[in-house]
Amino acid sequence: MQELIERIRAEAEYLGKGIIKVDGFLNHQIDPVLTMGMGSAFAQRFAALGVTDITKIVTAEVSGIAPAVTTGYALGVPVVYARKHRPITMPDGFFDAQAPSHTKGNLVNLMVSPQYLSENDRVLLIDDFLARGLTIQALAELIGKSGATLCGIGCVIEKTFERGRELLAPLGVPIVTLAQIDLGFDGIIVN
Amino acid sequence: MQELIERIRAEAEYLGKGIIKVDGFLNHQIDPVLTMGMGSAFAQRFAALGVTDITKIVTAEVSGIAPAVTTGYALGVPVVYARKHRPITMPDGFFDAQAPSHTKGNLVNLMVSPQYLSENDRVLLIDDFLARGLTIQALAELIGKSGATLCGIGCVIEKTFERGRELLAPLGVPIVTLAQIDLGFDGIIVN
Repeated sequence: MQELIERIRAEAEYLGKGIIKVDGFLNHQIDPVLTMGMGSAFAQRFAALGVTDITKIVTAEVSGIAPAVTTGYALGVPVVYARKHRPITMPDGFFDAQAPSHTKGNLVNLMVSPQYLSENDRVLLIDDFLARGLTIQALAELIGKSGATLCGIGCVIEKTFERGRELLAPLGVPIVTLAQIDLGFDGIIVN
Repeated sequence: MQELIERIRAEAEYLGKGIIKVDGFLNHQIDPVLTMGMGSAFAQRFAALGVTDITKIVTAEVSGIAPAVTTGYALGVPVVYARKHRPITMPDGFFDAQAPSHTKGNLVNLMVSPQYLSENDRVLLIDDFLARGLTIQALAELIGKSGATLCGIGCVIEKTFERGRELLAPLGVPIVTLAQIDLGFDGIIVN
């Protein structure tokens, strides 16, 4: 997605240790017009890959929500975001899986109510980053527990140097990323 | 917003103690088309009130993000969501304020980077619920610390029986809510 690639090249900051700051349009401040473009791009790319009849988008709170909502808008389907804290409104029998926490260094439990995901669903999994792939892997496990069919994985930015794509290959579904970042000798390389 | 009111009447569950479950389209599962309608409704309602030249939408993670993004889309301005955990990408000198946590019973610190909010900004504060008004009050305090001008407050659903509107009246800005819920003898009353 050219507009995204140019935006990353213009604004992303490499903070070292694989950390890329894109807080100006994705992770703290959101550009709604760019985010709508992401949703359209995911819808087009998956359609071109023959991924059709999607009934639900699944993501995890927090940063996946915006691109998931615009993808759901482009496809006309609901979005479910996995919760990290069980709200009092969530019934027993929820589906869950564990992923490493970005902020706390420990594991976080991702939870989805059985009311909003079932064996009849055909799911696109959308998130902001594909890094090591552990959050996506946990969400795929959660979707598996619900009996729903995972049909594709879409992430806004892929950090190719963290090799998450290899971890997720056994899932056997198309993986679409809208921009790829690799590490060069003196900074990041964006394509 | 008639479509929202009808959706609440059809799907909301009253769990007692003032807790209203709208997880099917707002707080866990999101209806992107309905959420786009919320953004358009906020834009129209504030314009009709003479609230113009908005430069930024501010909300808090998590459930405020979706309606904030669609409002930002309708107005063509960026959205900043206050973080509850400081990410390693957030510099020193952030603006913060404390609000009660919904999930933990204690206080949560809401934080916004000084990179994305300044005295030049004219802000609309958007959130999912107006209940007691304490989260909105904290966000207004945070916006005040940045020097930005708070121009209006928009919440998707107002729980009128929790009287948040009275708490926020001293802020002296228009408060727009798209549906109001009160408690009746045998359940909720939605208008």
